[in-house]
Amino acid sequence: MVNGGAMSGSGNLMDFLDEPFPDVGTYEDFHTIDWLREKSRDTDRHRKITSKSKESIWEFIKSLLDAWSGWVVMLLIGLLAGTLAGVIDLAVDWMTDLKEGVCLSAFWYSHEQCCWTSNETTFEDRDKCPLWQKWSELLVNQSEGASAYILNYLMYILWALLFAFLAVSLVRVFAPYACGSGIPEIKTILSGFIIRGYLGKWTLLIKTVTLVLVVSSGLSLGKEGPLVHVACCCGNFFSSLFSKYSKNEGKRREVLSAAAAAGVSVAFGAPIGGVLFSLEEVSYYFPLKTLWRSFFAALVAAFTLRSINPFGNSRLVLFYVEYHTPWYMAELFPFILLGVFGGLWGTLFIRCNIAWCRRRKTTKLGKYPVLEVIVVTAITAIIAYPNPYTRQSTSELISELFNDCGALESSQLCDYINDPNMTRPVDDIPDRPAGIGVYTAMWQLALALVFKIVITIFTFGMKIPSGLFIPSMAVGAMAGRMVGIGVEQLAYHHHDWIIFRNWCRPGADCVTPGLYAMVGAAACLGGVTRMTVSLVVIMFELTGGLEYIVPLMAAAVTSKWVADAFGKEGIYEAHIHLNGYPFLDVKDEFTHRTLATDVMRPRRGEPPLSVLTQDSMTVEDVETLIKETDYNGFPVVVSRDSERLIGFAQRRELILAIKNARQRQEGIVSNSIMYFTEEPPELPANSPHPLKLRRILNLSPFTVTDHTPMETVVDIFRKLGLRQCLVTRSGRLLGIITKKDVLRHMAQMANQDPESIMFN
Amino acid sequence: MVNGGAMSGSGNLMDFLDEPFPDVGTYEDFHTIDWLREKSRDTDRHRKITSKSKESIWEFIKSLLDAWSGWVVMLLIGLLAGTLAGVIDLAVDWMTDLKEGVCLSAFWYSHEQCCWTSNETTFEDRDKCPLWQKWSELLVNQSEGASAYILNYLMYILWALLFAFLAVSLVRVFAPYACGSGIPEIKTILSGFIIRGYLGKWTLLIKTVTLVLVVSSGLSLGKEGPLVHVACCCGNFFSSLFSKYSKNEGKRREVLSAAAAAGVSVAFGAPIGGVLFSLEEVSYYFPLKTLWRSFFAALVAAFTLRSINPFGNSRLVLFYVEYHTPWYMAELFPFILLGVFGGLWGTLFIRCNIAWCRRRKTTKLGKYPVLEVIVVTAITAIIAYPNPYTRQSTSELISELFNDCGALESSQLCDYINDPNMTRPVDDIPDRPAGIGVYTAMWQLALALVFKIVITIFTFGMKIPSGLFIPSMAVGAMAGRMVGIGVEQLAYHHHDWIIFRNWCRPGADCVTPGLYAMVGAAACLGGVTRMTVSLVVIMFELTGGLEYIVPLMAAAVTSKWVADAFGKEGIYEAHIHLNGYPFLDVKDEFTHRTLATDVMRPRRGEPPLSVLTQDSMTVEDVETLIKETDYNGFPVVVSRDSERLIGFAQRRELILAIKNARQRQEGIVSNSIMYFTEEPPELPANSPHPLKLRRILNLSPFTVTDHTPMETVVDIFRKLGLRQCLVTRSGRLLGIITKKDVLRHMAQMANQDPESIMFN
Repeated sequence: MVNGGAMSGSGNLMDFLDEPFPDVGTYEDFHTIDWLREKSRDTDRHRKITSKSKESIWEFIKSLLDAWSGWVVMLLIGLLAGTLAGVIDLAVDWMTDLKEGVCLSAFWYSHEQCCWTSNETTFEDRDKCPLWQKWSELLVNQSEGASAYILNYLMYILWALLFAFLAVSLVRVFAPYACGSGIPEIKTILSGFIIRGYLGKWTLLIKTVTLVLVVSSGLSLGKEGPLVHVACCCGNFFSSLFSKYSKNEGKRREVLSAAAAAGVSVAFGAPIGGVLFSLEEVSYYFPLKTLWRSFFAALVAAFTLRSINPFGNSRLVLFYVEYHTPWYMAELFPFILLGVFGGLWGTLFIRCNIAWCRRRKTTKLGKYPVLEVIVVTAITAIIAYPNPYTRQSTSELISELFNDCGALESSQLCDYINDPNMTRPVDDIPDRPAGIGVYTAMWQLALALVFKIVITIFTFGMKIPSGLFIPSMAVGAMAGRMVGIGVEQLAYHHHDWIIFRNWCRPGADCVTPGLYAMVGAAACLGGVTRMTVSLVVIMFELTGGLEYIVPLMAAAVTSKWVADAFGKEGIYEAHIHLNGYPFLDVKDEFTHRTLATDVMRPRRGEPPLSVLTQDSMTVEDVETLIKETDYNGFPVVVSRDSERLIGFAQRRELILAIKNARQRQEGIVSNSIMYFTEEPPELPANSPHPLKLRRILNLSPFTVTDHTPMETVVDIFRKLGLRQCLVTRSGRLLGIITKKDVLRHMAQMANQDPESIMFN
Repeated sequence: MVNGGAMSGSGNLMDFLDEPFPDVGTYEDFHTIDWLREKSRDTDRHRKITSKSKESIWEFIKSLLDAWSGWVVMLLIGLLAGTLAGVIDLAVDWMTDLKEGVCLSAFWYSHEQCCWTSNETTFEDRDKCPLWQKWSELLVNQSEGASAYILNYLMYILWALLFAFLAVSLVRVFAPYACGSGIPEIKTILSGFIIRGYLGKWTLLIKTVTLVLVVSSGLSLGKEGPLVHVACCCGNFFSSLFSKYSKNEGKRREVLSAAAAAGVSVAFGAPIGGVLFSLEEVSYYFPLKTLWRSFFAALVAAFTLRSINPFGNSRLVLFYVEYHTPWYMAELFPFILLGVFGGLWGTLFIRCNIAWCRRRKTTKLGKYPVLEVIVVTAITAIIAYPNPYTRQSTSELISELFNDCGALESSQLCDYINDPNMTRPVDDIPDRPAGIGVYTAMWQLALALVFKIVITIFTFGMKIPSGLFIPSMAVGAMAGRMVGIGVEQLAYHHHDWIIFRNWCRPGADCVTPGLYAMVGAAACLGGVTRMTVSLVVIMFELTGGLEYIVPLMAAAVTSKWVADAFGKEGIYEAHIHLNGYPFLDVKDEFTHRTLATDVMRPRRGEPPLSVLTQDSMTVEDVETLIKETDYNGFPVVVSRDSERLIGFAQRRELILAIKNARQRQEGIVSNSIMYFTEEPPELPANSPHPLKLRRILNLSPFTVTDHTPMETVVDIFRKLGLRQCLVTRSGRLLGIITKKDVLRHMAQMANQDPESIMFN
């Protein structure tokens, strides 16, 4: 818009400001970008390249390269994000096992790799091979007994503490932005906020390393959310290589949206779900071109990860499952119950976690982040080790809970009493009575569930990278599996009850407890994040069949409704509010009957709006105005009496223009008249040389009338991505509304303290 | 906005217009809606319900019902759309077979059903059973020989002509809007245009019936596009049952977007693809809430269809395929070639079809639609019958082409020479040399391909329901299968060539011709419609595996790039332009350097803008102005001298308000002063009673300055869905830009004749 407006003034050759001067068009840290202006700048750039491309072959090739750079960036993001995800998976695998023991043939092998490469391994004893030694075997040559157990227990805690300490120290020292899941901040950045360094190279490096450390330490957190942050860092890095993206904050955000999709794509092996996640949950401005490119980046990332093959199963998917039996209508009831559980858990988690994080921010607690991490890690390790379901890594746990019990399954959860006469094929095992192992597992799962619920509340938000997807899914999967086993046993023992009679004859395989675990996981994830379509699609990509989409949808819908009844905010929005980021949510509906005049500044009783006049203020006047106020820009009017608006000048550009003019243009002194018109005003003969500033004047500022409903104003701010909007009545300038005014007003209307929500 | 603005004037109890009068807030046929206003009206309605709901339990229940009505509508749409799709499938199945013969046990059985129900059928002879009689058997008791062939040929042509004649007559007489695919018109309607009756009940009924007829007649068209229209008619029908949707054109369009998703969902059995199709291709305003609901509607529709089970295979999917072998990097080259073919076919088809349709519009040809349909049907039937690949229904053809050759396949396309020593499992058949049947099939396919290409150009656009998905896919599948067989034979006979050596050892199953057919189908569909993500997702849902997504993407991307190089418009946009619908495409980028002042009216030399003054015009003045002009509304200014804008009044509402006032308010005569201010102007003592019209004044008209780049203006029109926008300079009203002005300007900039594109 600045450039567009300047065109008409470009006839004047004397106007040195027509040459761009450095730093024009950039933003300061913690400021909001102007989407319309960024778009306009990109179109200008594009026009320039197109017209130049006809001049020579070299320019034509350059224009082609420019047109293709978007795809190249996507390819690079996909490759790097996929590679990083693969490396993280492999490293986590190894380091998680390191807490238990070490491989004698090569210390960098994980337990599984160690026994794979060993020839002495039989299929039955996949987990046991002489090359893999527990710490007790290695150190005191004992594999059984109380002292061995205690030694292993201690080593487990020591490694966990070491990993956690390393992680928190690295984050503290090198990259404070590497902590948390990063999704709230990425949402804010994508909505147009500038947080320098949040997606920087150091953050990328440190987050990748510390992510491995914290996941291996056994803390109740996941790597999925932080992977989105890591992918966005990759996106930021590659977009800085191409001037098309590095010099335009709007275009850069298109790349970041696609990178977020790639992040989810590698986190779950769900490319379509990743794109929908980016669309539904993260992105702000998502043109269709971006949709297609995001999809490309997500696919490249997924295939890169698959060729690294960290799970050793040629699968894209973290928790690949195949179920063999359909579900029945009557099962919808427990599925909906799981949805209710998910919604309640979501509400509970958000409330408690936000309360704890607020406490951390406001009390002394926040001053000892390293100590906090150490204490939580110690507690986690101490409580987790004795219970097999908390000792193993959370994603293994989820995987075990999702899986259906095959005939060969050795898991405790599959300890059913077999009918000796059974001669069915492996895939079609009828429902059986539960054995002692299942009952033990139920108790252990119940304890693990309570532990997970409590510890996750305290873990999420510490100064380490921490994702929420996996713990939420684990909570849901444990609850779901228990409900599933309950329903299964009920159906087995009471198959004559009316509700079971129609679909569960004796000897039939009618209940799949693994499906309940999956439904529970979806419900809990939905309750915490309030994702809907993307959640169901991610789950659909995990199972790869439309069969189970109805149970998943029923649970996801119920969970969202239940959770929404207690509060509309998902965990990410709640953290955005807690941190006071200026985020204007597309999903919030503004339904109050206020008008622009109620929100604009100056309010009644406040001093009048600081404005510039088009041709009567001196350089000194303006410098004083800039010094005395901290507004980001000033409306320019014809004269103070008529108050007729002609344009808007940015503070930053005014300062730069005056500085430049004073240094480089002759005759500019403090009482030079500044003018924004095309022709200089008529001045007395001996007055100093005037300063023309039309170049920096935005001739098309956005205006609304004072009677415009705030609902419309909010809509305009959201859809056009404005920074500010001027308010007029019958052509007279009355006031200004900034994005922060809008946010403050929305908070006020929702009965929140408006001052609590501003970024500080 | 009208209501919002009126609030401040509502203190005056004398102002009878505060009571709504009938028809306010509706639109005339072929007019564009004002999205901001519709949204504002909905918020008002919502506010009213929320505040009322606290008054009594009954009101509370009503408010709950209102909140749930969205989901109820979606459920109903899904159920009806799924049912209709199932009924259409069954009827098409039966009537297509009716062209060949009849079932003796029950004439309403299709060939397949007839032989299923017969006990004498063996698995080998699925197609032959005594109960199913060809026409020659039934009429002259001959099943073989030249005369039987000719009789069957004649019966085939006769039935085809009968079906086509019935279809075109029904469309002509009862529902002229039922012709075509409907997608261009639905896109236009969703963008905010009113075409009354286009989604009416008659259209629904006639389109459903005639769709069955034309598909059965064997014409080169598909039912997938029209199913979207049918689903949207269902959506319109159900939304008319709930005042929330029937009285608000904006909300109604949310329902229609979801209905379009349900339509694609049942057309292909691809719910996620349907939602993405609606998002990418059809919809204009697609808030996230709609995304979730569309998904729900699409799922309900898909499951309804599945429970009807028209394909008899419990599959959701029309062309379910499973491939057993992976694809290899070297195959990307033929896949990309297929992409190029798809792009070229898309360009060729669009150019020729549009030229032919333009001819139909402008010459005598358009006056004989029935004759045209009869002639095309006759030609199609005559040429199609001798070739087995054009005689069978197009979706069966595609299904056959997609399928991999199993060991039991009896198709001519699978006539390979088997190695007698082969003892491999059924699923893993190595590449074999082609037998005579395959070579015959290649010739027949080549002829069928040429025929399909030519005839589809003339078929699409006739006055019958006609979809383009299936013919495009058929063209691509035929080309793809031929390329696939070619590559397969090349690889078999030359497995020592460098390109084959790495991945295609003798005895390996390395090339899957069916996959080539699928890739070709995606490429051709992409070339014609320019779908991207939704296309790949639909194809992904057909195969149900991420394995083949890279070939599909490579072909889709290539096809889009090749086609875009010849022209950016897809077939639907081309038809929108041809018909001159006022459609502002979200995807078109406007990159010219024009300003609002270049587009606004009045232009230089034109008479000044027709405006109303706030308190000095009489009723007669206004009536004269309304009579003499045909503008949709008039800006209201303080006075003609100052030209300071205070609001905007709609023509329709001015007329209604004056009519109402003259009838019902005492003392209103032709020279009553009309005033838009809050207080009546001071008038001489004996002047007639003034008429207060503040109620209908939009106090927050949208304004931009004359220096605003058109790029920004186009963006504002698109994102906010405006009808018009006023242009000011330093607070003075200069002119007006309407949506049509914007469209005309865009056409001018693209070197099109601006007058040719307007709806007439």
